[in-house]
Order: sequence, then C-alpha cells, then structure tokens
Amino acid sequence: MPGKTGTAKKRSAKTGLPPGFLIHIGEKHSEKAKITLREYDETYFREKEISTLDGVLPSSDRAGVAWIHIDGLQEIHLLEQMGSVFNLHPLILEDILNTEQRPKSEDHDEYYYIVLRLFCEDADDGFVPEQISIVLGSNWLISLQEKEGKLLDPVRERLRNEKGRLRRAGADYLAHALLDVIVDSVFPVLDKFGEKIEILEEKLVGSPSPKTLQSIQTLKREMIFLRKSVWPLREMIGGLARSDSSLIHESSVIYFRDIYDHVVQVIDTIETYRDMLSGMLDIYLSSVSNRMNEIMKVLTLIATLFMPLTFLVGVYGMNFKYMPELEWQWGYFVLWGLMIVTAVVMLFYFKRKKWL
Amino acid sequence: MPGKTGTAKKRSAKTGLPPGFLIHIGEKHSEKAKITLREYDETYFREKEISTLDGVLPSSDRAGVAWIHIDGLQEIHLLEQMGSVFNLHPLILEDILNTEQRPKSEDHDEYYYIVLRLFCEDADDGFVPEQISIVLGSNWLISLQEKEGKLLDPVRERLRNEKGRLRRAGADYLAHALLDVIVDSVFPVLDKFGEKIEILEEKLVGSPSPKTLQSIQTLKREMIFLRKSVWPLREMIGGLARSDSSLIHESSVIYFRDIYDHVVQVIDTIETYRDMLSGMLDIYLSSVSNRMNEIMKVLTLIATLFMPLTFLVGVYGMNFKYMPELEWQWGYFVLWGLMIVTAVVMLFYFKRKKWL
Amino acid sequence: MPGKTGTAKKRSAKTGLPPGFLIHIGEKHSEKAKITLREYDETYFREKEISTLDGVLPSSDRAGVAWIHIDGLQEIHLLEQMGSVFNLHPLILEDILNTEQRPKSEDHDEYYYIVLRLFCEDADDGFVPEQISIVLGSNWLISLQEKEGKLLDPVRERLRNEKGRLRRAGADYLAHALLDVIVDSVFPVLDKFGEKIEILEEKLVGSPSPKTLQSIQTLKREMIFLRKSVWPLREMIGGLARSDSSLIHESSVIYFRDIYDHVVQVIDTIETYRDMLSGMLDIYLSSVSNRMNEIMKVLTLIATLFMPLTFLVGVYGMNFKYMPELEWQWGYFVLWGLMIVTAVVMLFYFKRKKWL
Amino acid sequence: MPGKTGTAKKRSAKTGLPPGFLIHIGEKHSEKAKITLREYDETYFREKEISTLDGVLPSSDRAGVAWIHIDGLQEIHLLEQMGSVFNLHPLILEDILNTEQRPKSEDHDEYYYIVLRLFCEDADDGFVPEQISIVLGSNWLISLQEKEGKLLDPVRERLRNEKGRLRRAGADYLAHALLDVIVDSVFPVLDKFGEKIEILEEKLVGSPSPKTLQSIQTLKREMIFLRKSVWPLREMIGGLARSDSSLIHESSVIYFRDIYDHVVQVIDTIETYRDMLSGMLDIYLSSVSNRMNEIMKVLTLIATLFMPLTFLVGVYGMNFKYMPELEWQWGYFVLWGLMIVTAVVMLFYFKRKKWL
Amino acid sequence: MPGKTGTAKKRSAKTGLPPGFLIHIGEKHSEKAKITLREYDETYFREKEISTLDGVLPSSDRAGVAWIHIDGLQEIHLLEQMGSVFNLHPLILEDILNTEQRPKSEDHDEYYYIVLRLFCEDADDGFVPEQISIVLGSNWLISLQEKEGKLLDPVRERLRNEKGRLRRAGADYLAHALLDVIVDSVFPVLDKFGEKIEILEEKLVGSPSPKTLQSIQTLKREMIFLRKSVWPLREMIGGLARSDSSLIHESSVIYFRDIYDHVVQVIDTIETYRDMLSGMLDIYLSSVSNRMNEIMKVLTLIATLFMPLTFLVGVYGMNFKYMPELEWQWGYFVLWGLMIVTAVVMLFYFKRKKWL
Repeated sequence: MPGKTGTAKKRSAKTGLPPGFLIHIGEKHSEKAKITLREYDETYFREKEISTLDGVLPSSDRAGVAWIHIDGLQEIHLLEQMGSVFNLHPLILEDILNTEQRPKSEDHDEYYYIVLRLFCEDADDGFVPEQISIVLGSNWLISLQEKEGKLLDPVRERLRNEKGRLRRAGADYLAHALLDVIVDSVFPVLDKFGEKIEILEEKLVGSPSPKTLQSIQTLKREMIFLRKSVWPLREMIGGLARSDSSLIHESSVIYFRDIYDHVVQVIDTIETYRDMLSGMLDIYLSSVSNRMNEIMKVLTLIATLFMPLTFLVGVYGMNFKYMPELEWQWGYFVLWGLMIVTAVVMLFYFKRKKWL
Repeated sequence: MPGKTGTAKKRSAKTGLPPGFLIHIGEKHSEKAKITLREYDETYFREKEISTLDGVLPSSDRAGVAWIHIDGLQEIHLLEQMGSVFNLHPLILEDILNTEQRPKSEDHDEYYYIVLRLFCEDADDGFVPEQISIVLGSNWLISLQEKEGKLLDPVRERLRNEKGRLRRAGADYLAHALLDVIVDSVFPVLDKFGEKIEILEEKLVGSPSPKTLQSIQTLKREMIFLRKSVWPLREMIGGLARSDSSLIHESSVIYFRDIYDHVVQVIDTIETYRDMLSGMLDIYLSSVSNRMNEIMKVLTLIATLFMPLTFLVGVYGMNFKYMPELEWQWGYFVLWGLMIVTAVVMLFYFKRKKWL
Repeated sequence: MPGKTGTAKKRSAKTGLPPGFLIHIGEKHSEKAKITLREYDETYFREKEISTLDGVLPSSDRAGVAWIHIDGLQEIHLLEQMGSVFNLHPLILEDILNTEQRPKSEDHDEYYYIVLRLFCEDADDGFVPEQISIVLGSNWLISLQEKEGKLLDPVRERLRNEKGRLRRAGADYLAHALLDVIVDSVFPVLDKFGEKIEILEEKLVGSPSPKTLQSIQTLKREMIFLRKSVWPLREMIGGLARSDSSLIHESSVIYFRDIYDHVVQVIDTIETYRDMLSGMLDIYLSSVSNRMNEIMKVLTLIATLFMPLTFLVGVYGMNFKYMPELEWQWGYFVLWGLMIVTAVVMLFYFKRKKWL
Repeated sequence: MPGKTGTAKKRSAKTGLPPGFLIHIGEKHSEKAKITLREYDETYFREKEISTLDGVLPSSDRAGVAWIHIDGLQEIHLLEQMGSVFNLHPLILEDILNTEQRPKSEDHDEYYYIVLRLFCEDADDGFVPEQISIVLGSNWLISLQEKEGKLLDPVRERLRNEKGRLRRAGADYLAHALLDVIVDSVFPVLDKFGEKIEILEEKLVGSPSPKTLQSIQTLKREMIFLRKSVWPLREMIGGLARSDSSLIHESSVIYFRDIYDHVVQVIDTIETYRDMLSGMLDIYLSSVSNRMNEIMKVLTLIATLFMPLTFLVGVYGMNFKYMPELEWQWGYFVLWGLMIVTAVVMLFYFKRKKWL
Repeated sequence: MPGKTGTAKKRSAKTGLPPGFLIHIGEKHSEKAKITLREYDETYFREKEISTLDGVLPSSDRAGVAWIHIDGLQEIHLLEQMGSVFNLHPLILEDILNTEQRPKSEDHDEYYYIVLRLFCEDADDGFVPEQISIVLGSNWLISLQEKEGKLLDPVRERLRNEKGRLRRAGADYLAHALLDVIVDSVFPVLDKFGEKIEILEEKLVGSPSPKTLQSIQTLKREMIFLRKSVWPLREMIGGLARSDSSLIHESSVIYFRDIYDHVVQVIDTIETYRDMLSGMLDIYLSSVSNRMNEIMKVLTLIATLFMPLTFLVGVYGMNFKYMPELEWQWGYFVLWGLMIVTAVVMLFYFKRKKWL
C-alpha cells in the first residue's frame, strides 16, 4: 500500500509555510521534466517537445486546441512559469506539487482545475497510484504527471489517427477523454483484486492459515486506500457533469455523465469486495474455531478411551495380599475381554455423538 | 453468483477505447438477433418478425404505438442502424452493449433510456440476471434483451388479447407494463431465498456444520449481488415517477408510483433477509462454542473421575516393604468401596453443576 | 413472526398480471364481508348494516359524515362496486386486496388513501398484524379490514355516546381517531416485548442456555418485523401532518402531529429494545466463554493435582532390584507425607491464582 | 435505568382514549400541587404561593413578566383551569400529564410549548429523570414539574437578587434561563458516568470478572437511555434558535444558540462514552480469551511434563520375567537421571516457546 | 488523552450560573497574561508588548491591521476590558474562557468569532490540545491562547520579514494564516499516530500480547478524541469559505477553501487510521485464538502419544498369576518394539493432519 502512513509524514513538512509556497511533496524523480505540446483542430495536428512554456498560450480567438502535457514535477521554476503564462492562482500550483492531494475539481472562471489519481500496475502484483493534474482553459489544456507513463497513450493515439469527435470537439472533450482513461485505469486494478479474492477464497475453504488472515487484512487495507482515492471522484465528476461553467459545453455534459456512471460502477464493485472480505474474515474465524473443535475431539476421544482402561490395569497392578481375581486362571484374559468391550462401547458412543 | 468478480474483468477490456465505440461486453450468444415489430392502437394489432430497422420509425403524427423488441445483442451493425434510424446518442448504444450496466434511466428529451436487470431462475436453483434496455420515444418503444426469454410474455399476451388500457394507452404505458413485469421478476427469486433461509435455519437448530456456515455465506453474497441490482431501481423508478418529461403522461405517473412501491417492498424484504442471515451467523458461531463446551465437559468429567482413582490404585501398586494396608485381608475390597464412593460423590457433584 | 418469509411467496403469484387486476393476497376467510354504514353529524347518529354500496356516497353539500366500514376482503365484486361508486383508481383497489402492503398514504385529490397495519395480541403470547385501509373523502370515509375485530371499538363508542369533537368535526378527524387507535395498538405489543426482554435478562444472569440464545434471536427477528411495519408510519403520518390537501382541515393538523409524536415514541422504544437485545447477545456469548473457562479450570486443577502424584506412586511401583527407599521402614508414610504436602502447596498456589 | 421498559407499559393504558383526555401517566405523588406566582420587571419582584390560576394571566400591555411554577401534576382540575385561563390546546394539557413524553417544542402562535427532561442524582449513585413542561407566552411563562425540586433554584435566586439581564429581559429570556439550567443538569450525570467508566477501566486491567461485564452492559444501557433523552434536544433547541416566532426576541436567539452548543457538547460526550464502552467490551472479551490461554498453558505444561515420566516409571513397573535394566545395580538412579534430564529439556523448551 | 473524562467534570461546575458569567474553565496557569500588539500594513510593521487594551481598537478608516495576541486567560478583568473596548457579546467572553469548547465559528456582523484547538506534541510522545480563540474585526484581529507557545511563530515570522501577501492583505487573510498554521498542526500529530500504528503492526505480527491490545485500544481512544476535535472543523471552515460576511473578502475565500481541503485530508487520514486499528483488533483476537490452537495441539499430541503407551505398560504391570506374555523371554523387547511402532504411526498421522 504505497503512501499509506507516509501521507501525513511528508505533508507535515509543509506546516507553517505560507500558502502558494511551492515545494514538491512526494517521491523525487531525478529526470528532467518533459513538456509536450500538441496543437490540433479538425484539419491539422502538430506534436512537439518544447522546453519553455513562453508563448504556448493560444490566443482566445484561435480555433484549435493546445494540449500541453508535462511529465515530472521537480522543476519548480517551470511551474512558476506556467503560473504566470496561464495566469493560474498560486494555490493551484501548490496543489499540483503536493502529490498527496485529495481528488477534487475547482472552477476558477477562467479555467477549471482537476486533480485525481490514476493507477498503474507495478511489477509485483500491486498498483502504483500516481497523481495527475489537469487545468482546462477555453481552448487549451495542461496535464501534469509525476512520471512519464503509457496510460494516456490511447488518447494520444486517438488524437493522431482518427478524424473523430476528439479532433472536432474542444478542450473540454479532451479533458473528458483524459478523465475517461484515468477512471478506467481502476478497472484492471479491480480485476487484480477480484482474482486475489478468488484465490483467497479457495485457500479459505482448503487450508486456512494465519497467513490467509494476513492476506485478507492486506487486501482489506488496500481496499480502504483505493476507496479513499475513488470516493471523492463521485462528487467531483458529478460536479463537472452538473457544472454551468462556460468551459464545459452542453454537448460534453453527457460524456461526463458517462464517466460518472463508470465511477459509480467502480464504487459499487469496491463496496461489494469490502462486503466479501468481511464475510471471509467471519469464515476464517469460525474455521479456526472449528479446527479447535476437531483437536479437542481427538484429545477427548483418546483420554476417554484410555483413562478407564489405564485405571483397570492399575487395579490389577496392586499388591494386596488377598486379591481373588489375580488367582483366577483366566483372569487376565477376562480383563482383556472386558477392556475391549469397554473400548468398543465407547467408540460406538462417540460414533453416535458424531465425533468420529 | 454470476458475473460477480467477472464484472471488472470484462469491463477492463474497454479501457482506452473512445466513448461510443461499440463492443459487446458480456457472454456471447451465437444465434442471430431476432427483431419483432408490434404495431397497435385501440383498434388494430400487428406483429411480425423483421430483419432490418429501416422504416420502422413511425411518423410522429400517427396514432398507434410501435414496439420493436430485439433478442440478442451480438450484431453490432444492427445497433448502429438503430442508432441512425432513431437518432440515438452513441453512448446509449455503448451502454446497451455493456451488459454489466448499473440500472439507470436517462432523459434525452426526444427519448428516454432505461436499463435494468431482470431475473430468470436457472436449472440448478439459482437465478440468472439478464440486462434489458428500453428506449422510450413519443409513439415508439425499443426493448433489447440478451437472450430470447419468456419473461415478457405476459405483456405480449395482454397486447394480443385484451382490449384494455394497454392498447388504448401510449408507449409510456407499454414501458410501465414492461418495467412492472421486470421488477416483479424479483419476487420468485426472493421466494427461493426465503425457502433456502428456512431450510438453513432448520439445519442450524438441528446439526450445524461448517457446511452450514458456507451456505450462509453463499446466501449472504448472493444477497449482496441482488441488492446491488435492486437498490438503484429505487432512485430510477422514483425518478420516472417524478419526471416532467413530455414522454410520460401524467395519467401514467401513478402506475410508475405503483412499481416504485413494489421496488421498496423488494428492498425491505432484502434488508430483512440480510438481518436474518446476520442473526444466523451469530447462532452458528455460538453453537460452535457450545459444542466445544460440550466436548470439554466430557473430557473434564472423564479426567476428574479417573485421575484420582488411577492415583489410588497406583498407591497400592507400590513395592514398599512395609505397607500395612496390603496385609489387611479386606484391604482390596475396602479400596474398591472407597473408589466407588469417590466416583459417586464426583458424579453427584457434576450433576449439581449441571454437567450431566 | 407471521407473514415473514411468506410475503414474497404469495406476492410472486401476482407476477405478470396487469395493474388493477383484483386478486386477494393474504389469508382467505370464508365468512361473508360485513358492511356497516354510520352517518352522523353534531345532532344525529345512525348506524346500520348494509349489503350494497350503491347510494351510500353522500352528496358533497350534505353536512354530516358517512363512515363505511367493511370487514372482510374476499368479495371482489364488492370492491369493484366500491371503486365505481366512489370513483377510486383501480390501483387502490389492488392495494387494498394485497395485504402485504407497505404502510403508505397517497393523495388522489378527490380522496386520500391510507394503508397501514394494526396489531392484535393472539392466543399464544405473540401478535397478529392485520392490514387496514382507509379511504378519506370530503365528507365520507371508508375503512377496510381483513377480519372483524374489536380494536376500533373505542372509536365506535366515542361516536355513539359523546357529543364531543368527533361528532362535530369532519371526516378528517374521524380518520385521525382511527389512526390514533391503530398506532396506539402497538403499545401493548411493545409491553409484551418489554416483559419478554426482562424475563430473558433474568435467565441470562441466572442460567444461560442455547435456548436463551434462540429466544434472543426470535425476539430480535420479531423486532425486525415490527420495525419494518412501523418505520414507514413516520414518513406517512408526517406527510399527513404536513399535507396541504383540502381534505385535511388546518385544525386537524395538530392532531396528526400528535399521532406523529406517538409513532416517534414507538420507534424510539423499538430502537432501544434492539440495542438491548444486541447487548444481551454479547452477554450470552461471553457467558459461554466464561463457562468454558470454569470447566477448563476444573480440568486443569485435577490434572495438575493428580498427575505429579500418580507419577510419584508410579516411581515406587517399579521393580528395580536395588531401590533403597523401598527398604526403608517409614518410606511409605514419608511418601504419603510428601504427596500431601505437594497437594497442599498446589492448592495454595491455585488459591493465589484465584482458580478456587 | 428508570422508566426503561415501563414506558410502553404505562403508555398502553391510554390506548383508545380520545385525544385531549386528561389522565396522569407516571408515578403518582400524593402531595397537593403547589403553585408559585412570581411577577417581576426591572424595578419590582413579587413572589407568592397561590391556590387558583384565575386572574393570573397578565394583560398583554403590561410591562413585566408573570412566571407561574407548578409542582405536582396530579390535580387534573388545575390543569383544566390552566387550559381555559391561558387558552391552551387540549393536546398540550395531555402532553404535560404524559410524563413519558419525548422532548419537543411546538409553536402555537399565541404560545410556545416546550417539554424536556431534567436529571437529578438520586441516593444510590444513579440519576432520576424528571419531565418538565414550559409554556411560554408573550409576557408570561408557566413551568410544570412532577415533584418539587431544587434544580431551578439558581434561576429563582438570580430573579430575587440580581438586577441583571434576567429582570430586564422578557419571558423568552426566562425560558432560556430555565432551559439553560435544565440542559446543564446533564453535566453532573455525565460526570458520574465518567467516574464509573474510569473505575471500570481499572477493574478491567486489574481483575476482570463476569461482574465487570455486567457493569459495562448496565452503563451501556443507561447511556442508551440518556442518549434517547438528549438527542431530541438538539433538534428542539436548534428549532428554538432558528424560530421566527414573535415570542422569541432576536436578542435572545444568541442565548438559545449558546444552549444549543451545550447540547452538542453533551451529545459529543455521550458518543465518546459509547465508543469507550464498546472498546471496553472488546478488551473484556479478549481478556477472557487470554485467561483461557493461561489456563491451557498450565494444563499443557503439567501434562507434557508428567505424561512421559509416568510412562517411563510404568515401563519399569512391568513384571516381565526378563527385563535386563531391572537387574542393573544403578538402574534406578540412571532412570532418575534420565527423568530429570527429560524434565529439564522440556522446561527449557517451554521457556523458549514463552510458556513460562 | 488529556481532558477526556475531565470535560464534563469541570464543565459541571458552571451549572446554574447566568450566561456571560466569566469563570475560567480549564487548567490554571499562574503566570500573568501577556499581550502583544502588532500593527502593520504594506509599508510598516510595529510589534510591542502592552499591558492594557485601552485604545488599541484602530479607527475603522485606518488602512493597516492591528493584531492583538493574548497568552493566558486567567486575568478575567482583562477579558472584561476586551469585551468593552471591542464591544463583544458577553457569551463570547464566556466561550473564550471555557477551554472545553467545541470548535465553531459565529458571525456577529461586526466581528467573527472562531474557536478551535491546536495540537502541540508534549514530552512523552503524546499531544496536548490547546484552545485558541480568534476574534476577527474589520481591520483588527484578537487571538487568545491558554499558554505561550511557538506554534504561531511562522505567522509572526512571515509578518516580520516578508513583504508578501500577508502584509498587503487585510485582517481576514491574517485569520486565514493563523487557521492554516493551526489546522496544519494536526499533521505532525497524525505522523506520530502513523508511526505508532506501524510499530504496533510489527508487534502484532511478531509477538502479540495483552499489552498490544491495550496499546491498540489506547490509540483507538486517542483517535476518538482527535476526531472529536477535528470533525467540527469541516463544517466550521466550510462555513467560513461559504460565508457572505463583509469581513471576509472574496479574494480570501479561495484560501479558506484551501484550509478546508486540508481539514478533509486530515479527516480522511483519521478515518483510515480508525479502519486500520479495527483491522488490527481482528488480527489480535484471531492470533489469540491461533495460539490457543497451537497450545491445544501440543497437549493433544502428548496425550495421544503417551496415553496408549502408558496403558500398555500398565497392562504388563499387572500381577495376574497367569499372564503368558510375562513368561516369554523376548516379551519385554517385543513390547518396546510395539510401543515404538505405535508412536511412529501416531506421529505420522499427526504429520499428515498438519499438527507437526
């Protein structure tokens, strides 16, 4: 579970700093930031790497859309430049750098600020959350990501190849396309969870061990973390769909509502998984009790079988001078017979009590 | 529990595709889609199988209602045709094909889109959810189902035979009739649950086993799944009843309110079953504890009875040279007497402690 | 718990029938329906049994109130007659017959439809819910009950004898009087619950048994059922008190608010009982654990006392040729002394550990 | 827990009576009711016991405030007189007499009716709830209490002595002063709870017994009862603070908001106590489990130590003709050595397993 | 957990006093109060200690901001002076002195009253909550703190040194700066919690003991206390951000929204910690059960192994006259072989049952 308890740890480093003071909260990556400018409208599409943000702001009367994508947040001067070129509020720059942000969207009249988390699977079967910030203007959009990744490639591909709605529509539709990809990035993560839960269930039925419990708890906790990331999306995307901002055209609203449906579906699945994990905990605990019962049964069986017999042989091990049975010729064999009968009767009794 | 963890698995296959891209999410059925057109008003009723949707859109000034029912979603070109003939938004076509949809209704001014799940009992005592989509226009209605089924037959029958309200009223009343049948399809499923719960209860009282627990958990989980399908109906049908869409006549509103009552009744029953299942889990766990107590009692009884006696016979099995009791003529019998008294006293003590 | 799992079973028989199709859902009673017409105003009071509903609808300009009370719902033609005489919506007739209805009230402009449940104690210490429907018109009121009962007698008595508000006021005040009696019918049921809970508590403290647990669970479940019947009353009576229907005079509103207070009091008590029952479950479970501890203590005590002693006597039962102690004259008595000391020390140790 | 299950019992006695029918629900007190009239404004203060309510209603143009306080509710004719003199609604008189009322406030235009519960500590460490009703008019206030008590003395004192705001302000401020004292009467009760919880916690850590559990449950239940009394206050006092009644001057609103803050503080504390009691239950249950573990450890230790040794001495107690060890001169001592080594090894093993 | 159960104890001392009666609720500090006046605008900054509040109220047409900070609340006459100089409502003075106040903000038109709690770490790894009151006027701000502390130093520093927004903006921005520092003071506390939780988790996996449980419960309770302090902040800061008070300029609103985001982040983290602690309790309880299972396994193993063997050697310790095996020359060794085989078979059986 990345960033779990680390959240506050890093965050507390900012205590006492003035708002708008830019400091990067999160893992440092040594590589330089990489800026890609994509300009397009229905008829043309240009894509180039740039090193400065000066002059990228398109004039408001130009038709096309300019999409600036920045990978890497460590160059603070770049963000300051961005702030002055696009006239962004200092608090937004601060939020972009604080990568422990809660998903939210803010309407600043001139632009819309959206921050949320996408999920990449990592090497060892887990997932890495990554914060992505989107600033949506009238005919431009800035997206900022901590690390370069392939998750947004489908959008890039659609921009390059197809002459579809994405090229015809405005920056708001581009924002939708990005949000769609980001929200959908949770589905493979949920898949993984589903598989893990299924494997755990088989283990639970087969041979539950304290390790199984630990796995359940780990899953539960990852679920808590995932839930924390996804729940605010509901409100946020819902807000976008209901927004009366001039930046979001009415024809795009239905697309945001579509993403909203996805978010609700994700939340439904998370809640279902939570319920299932709770049920598994109950099963685990009762299976521990059942094993205890099994063990106790064996112990009781053995004790009940051998204690009376041991008593009997003890009796005839006594050294009293006058013990008539000892003198009988068949005494020993009679005793054996008695003991076997006793044992058989007891086993029969256990059988009837369903202990065997 | 069908589709449970599979939801995300299949869903994640869509990640990265543009909205409106048509891909069938769900089980594939190889049969060809079957389209049935039913046209009716108070005086006539026509029913025929058709193979194309061209020309089925009735002109808006015609009096009767056209009901197009499609069984099978695998022919994507058919849906594209439907989209262009009835001028439907691409996202709706996408939703129709994605058979893991959350129940919802959307007002698109020109038409109303409703998607929900009906429940068929299957061979082995379970139930199969099936998604059904309804598009309601001014004087037409399209219903789409994954597989041909008999669940909607009552509506078809009522259309054919009776000269009742259904033939006189508009397409909105037909939508109501379909929703009514679909919502009512949950009642037999709830019946099954009720019966299973009753059987489980008898088992719980009689002879609870780890299997009983597993059955409880299975029921609980199926309940979670059912609940997930039914809860959104409340909001959705409530929305229809409160809707100010021109597609739903005021005289039909009371009928939607009636369905709303059914949904609330279903939800009430589901919540009651959930509470009952929780109570059963408590009973199971405490019955496991009680059995443990029973077993421990037997063990303790045997041990307490025979340990002192075994000690006594051990004493007189010692080989000390000078042990006066051994020389007594009646020593052996006195000891037997002593041991029997001890045992009787102990049994009496256990009796008083209610261990016997 | 009457009707619990039966709800859906009977209800599902209606699946597929058109709305407004009249079929009686509930227990059949063979007796004929009995209709009583009571007409009254401040000055006169008439009461007679009638056999048809034709002509009972008072003209809207007449001053008095006509109260039609029907016992027994099995004569469907009577309900159809009622529907046409009072011009009731078919869905209301359907709701009246479906005796598994959720309490609700509906404003149909011309009349107000109210359905709820009253509670009669039955022979063996339980309670029987019975559905009662009330249709309130401008100067008439129809009440329908499954079986003839005495619960409404106080209202009848007040009508006959007193020249109080009930005779002076309109049909809405009669509706209030009926609702008041019906809601108050829950109080004796709650009494019974209170007594049962007190008895259970004494048993819990005295001698808890698996039976006690079962009683707790039974009570819990009856509580769930009762709660399900009472909760919707809150919304429903609250709705009546806030209603702006012309059928409910402003001067009556305060009386409905009074009933609302009663409902809230009932709900409060139910919630308190639920909390108490939950607490009892905790006590039961921990008392089971405590008994286990008691049993284990006895076993451990016995084993710890006799195992070392048995070992000791075993030692001197060995047949080694050279065992010096066996030759000692007082060896046997020394050993007895040693064993008694060991036992006393152990008992002392247990005393200090509070096991005795 | 006073009045707990008795609530419904007494309440059900009223079932079937018409609204406004006056019957005293609650404990009977034999003493006569005592009426005290206090009249005051900034300049004068009069206080006298009266025996009739006739003529106490001040004319609405008089400046001062008349406060009528009644101790004892058993004289129903007095309440009827009050009803006619102050023109109160019969339902209010009924509510005053029903001392199992839920706290609430009602705006009757001409007057404001408030009913709530104050808490007196009783002799044996518990608390006695007592219902108090307040009717607030334009320049008069009636307060009714079941028994004479000292809780309102501070208000009386402030009226007599000080020339403060209370004498200058109107009847609404007097209502505030009374509510303030009543709400604050919960704080000492909460104190007691806090102390009891602390004592219980020490016991839990020291020596938990089934009695401790019972104390926890008793506290929990008293908390439920207290909560039931206090929760409605939130809504009620909040309603007073937001009220637009002409009876409550705008300058008094802030004082009601102050009481509202107290209520919220009380509720916060109650919720905290509830959480703490839940935590204590968990600790108790796990401490029972821990004791069981301790006991089992002792048993296992003894059994594991002595069973092998007893087996060994049993071996050499056998009577085989040819057992070479028996003939060895040092056999006995070698065996003793072997047994001691075995025991030491086992103890060491237990030590390492942390069982000792 | 400071002040936990003490809350009501101290608070109840006020019962019966008139509102506005000034009495200091909380720990007494003997030092004299210290008043610091800071006056500043964009161009100048003055800071001095003063001993009286007379004359510090700046005229409303002056440009700069006056910030009066008071450390120590014990000098009641000072508060009275403050009340008269700044024309504050007596209830506010009362609230300032009652240091068990729930966080809240009140709009009094002329000024805004804010009270909340900051958190200082104390010597032994805990945290000390301290109440801070802020009164925000048009161009002045009063802050009151119980004890002198360093937590507000960053604001003081920013005032002294920088020519930033803080010096240019008005008193509302100063209020924001203080609230920002105060809210952020929770982050280090959360850090501590995070570390403690991590340590506890390691212990849980390694060697859980009853002490671990106690630590979990202590953390849980501290969390309850922290939560109680932080939850109301959400509503309060949200209220400030939505406020239409003329005291808060529109350009400051976004800064309050920023604090709101911090509060939500804190609450999210607290809820996550709560969930984690609940999970840890489950793990602890099941690890106790697992240990019990381990112990029982050992006991059962030993008993099952040695009971049959002890029985066997008992058999050949009997003194029957005619026991053929005793006469056999190799009888003893055959028995040893038999016993070893028995033991091996049993161990093998345990191995297969996974008890070893």
